Amino acid sequence: MIDLVKNLATAPRRTKASVIRELLKLTNKPGVISFAGGLPDPEVFPYDFVVDSVKRIMDKKGRVALQYGPTEGLPELKDEFIKFLEKEEGIKVKHENLLVTTASQQALDIVGRLFIDASDPIIVELPSYMGGLQVFKSYGCDFVGVRMTEDGIITTELEEKLKWLKNQDEHYKFVYIVPDFQNPSGVTLSEKKRKRVVELSEEYNVIVVEDSPYRQIRFEGKAPNMIYKMDKETKKTDNIISIFTISKTFAPGLRIGMILANEQIIKKMVILKQSLDLCTSSLNQLIAADFFATGEFYRHIEKVKKVYKEKKDAMLACLERYMPEGVTWTKPEGGLFLWVKLPEHISADDMFEEAIKENVAYVIGSAFHIDGSGKNTMRLNFSYPTLYEIEEGIKRLAKVVKKRMAIK
Amino acid sequence: MIDLVKNLATAPRRTKASVIRELLKLTNKPGVISFAGGLPDPEVFPYDFVVDSVKRIMDKKGRVALQYGPTEGLPELKDEFIKFLEKEEGIKVKHENLLVTTASQQALDIVGRLFIDASDPIIVELPSYMGGLQVFKSYGCDFVGVRMTEDGIITTELEEKLKWLKNQDEHYKFVYIVPDFQNPSGVTLSEKKRKRVVELSEEYNVIVVEDSPYRQIRFEGKAPNMIYKMDKETKKTDNIISIFTISKTFAPGLRIGMILANEQIIKKMVILKQSLDLCTSSLNQLIAADFFATGEFYRHIEKVKKVYKEKKDAMLACLERYMPEGVTWTKPEGGLFLWVKLPEHISADDMFEEAIKENVAYVIGSAFHIDGSGKNTMRLNFSYPTLYEIEEGIKRLAKVVKKRMAIK
Repeated sequence: MIDLVKNLATAPRRTKASVIRELLKLTNKPGVISFAGGLPDPEVFPYDFVVDSVKRIMDKKGRVALQYGPTEGLPELKDEFIKFLEKEEGIKVKHENLLVTTASQQALDIVGRLFIDASDPIIVELPSYMGGLQVFKSYGCDFVGVRMTEDGIITTELEEKLKWLKNQDEHYKFVYIVPDFQNPSGVTLSEKKRKRVVELSEEYNVIVVEDSPYRQIRFEGKAPNMIYKMDKETKKTDNIISIFTISKTFAPGLRIGMILANEQIIKKMVILKQSLDLCTSSLNQLIAADFFATGEFYRHIEKVKKVYKEKKDAMLACLERYMPEGVTWTKPEGGLFLWVKLPEHISADDMFEEAIKENVAYVIGSAFHIDGSGKNTMRLNFSYPTLYEIEEGIKRLAKVVKKRMAIK
Repeated sequence: MIDLVKNLATAPRRTKASVIRELLKLTNKPGVISFAGGLPDPEVFPYDFVVDSVKRIMDKKGRVALQYGPTEGLPELKDEFIKFLEKEEGIKVKHENLLVTTASQQALDIVGRLFIDASDPIIVELPSYMGGLQVFKSYGCDFVGVRMTEDGIITTELEEKLKWLKNQDEHYKFVYIVPDFQNPSGVTLSEKKRKRVVELSEEYNVIVVEDSPYRQIRFEGKAPNMIYKMDKETKKTDNIISIFTISKTFAPGLRIGMILANEQIIKKMVILKQSLDLCTSSLNQLIAADFFATGEFYRHIEKVKKVYKEKKDAMLACLERYMPEGVTWTKPEGGLFLWVKLPEHISADDMFEEAIKENVAYVIGSAFHIDGSGKNTMRLNFSYPTLYEIEEGIKRLAKVVKKRMAIK
């Protein structure tokens, strides 16, 4: 065979396998209770709905469902999404503001491909979503990290970084934020900080990418407005790109996502998507459209919220019960994840092997930090494990933590 | 909004909207009979099968169907594809040699992304498939064109170009060939030339990308072996990457394709795909697997071949009947397209507007040539129009051609 090392392009050399996916392989060991994945609970998938929906679609729209569709996405799905945005978010948009994607990972790829040349600085949260970091890195960006507190990204630090980049004449391309029940931390960006983010986007004329896969899964508390909406209301700029997916509200197996942005940006993205996969599955777009049109979305999301809230509450109660003093964790109002902080001197990286030995798994927090920080943190998923596994798994994890803490 | 011109990366500036997609908009004019698209005939889509299949899948594999799948693709689909390859092509491969893709356009993107850095020469046919040209160009390659005759790429010319590139110390990455009923020309690469391509691949140690979306749709004649198989049989190199899709044998609306290659190459591709869309729709992969497992594929393909052959024969008969002397065309043994050559001095580009006025459309041949040649050629699709439209459309087209030829 050809010499792969000599023949590969730059992008694949930059693209590393996701640490999560590699870790997940270890967690497949029989008997391991895993909080490492990020999977929705298959117990709540709407199986019957899919069967009925496909029947309806084949009856009425079979020719659309099985054919190539327009690259920008089917109008049937955009129509429903426009209604959803107006009803749920108070956002009014047109078809031209929307691009259907093969789920949100493709949306992130399109954003990266549209803006990033090698060495362009991209501002990300510490910690940040690994799938975003991975794809942006593949385009050769330089990351600039901004730390977070319990109400999201530290906006004073964000301003400092923007000012510094501007003074250096650096071509910073966008700020990447996961504002609602962030993966990995479970943290939500406060309304006040969102306002500041919008102001900074105007002041430094920088795109903000608002990636929000979990927003609809809110168990409690009041949702702050979407950054996109707050930006629109200033009527000054139109710098926000928002990314949606039905992977957590319906099913990841359909691979349906959506980008909302200024129509000039969408236009450029459509051309890119043409070369990426021509179009997203028409069948799956119609199933998604039907999910909204029939009202199933609104019924289903209540079920998802109920099940995930119960699991989140169970995990919080178990952490309270079993973890030693000095360990803290976030209390997410929604989503799929929470974030555990061990005492500064304890490394969750080093502890991982021990945890696997004790048949419990998590994702090391450092994997979400572009600067290698966060060694004393870990991400726990509560949507996938059963209530029994949550209790037993946290018990095991607490044992491992206590053992580690006793060493020092 | 931010200044898009200042903020775009290099890739989107290189990525042009597909000429076909732009032309297709013109052909939407009411009353136009279009030979311009490349759509399968929706009359033959297996609607009932999809309904039954989804029911079966939700009963037995619902949890797999609606969940995230492995990036490399579901074993259920790979198993079926392995059987198909052995039965139909006499090729034995393992799971590690296969990557499921979001149809063949994504396969082309992954190939481009894996190998192409700016200025790398890529060898393509004259004419070649536009979707391939578009995505390879987005990675900044330099194209080197090799002309074709009625039995495919001119291998002596291919050798000359390879020798020239080698002598220049150029980092040529691959040869891109659509060997069966090529889009756009309808031409099939002969067994003899395939053998020579394999030899050249060994001699110049160069990857050959064998993109074969139409191979299963053969109406008549004997299929030459796949290039992949002939390469394997030499036991010398393992330089062939073959790309498959079910878009033409089943339905494009599912977006399911497959890459077959050396496992080291597949391994690298899997990492890339992770960042592109994590995984291809599990539901659609299972529908595709079911299509093979139930034997529906073998029943269905007979229907497709029958319908398309009838249309192809009708188009050939109409060309014979209506076209003036001096006009020639290919006689494809399968696929969806044929290729018309006008007298040298007639430009199909210039004639296009007139054709639209006469309510008939085609794709200009020059759009498939990376060197701007082929101005006197056009691509006609015979799979989508009805038999009536084929007769009426060719009549109209012949009228336009005659008028043009009379001017000179």
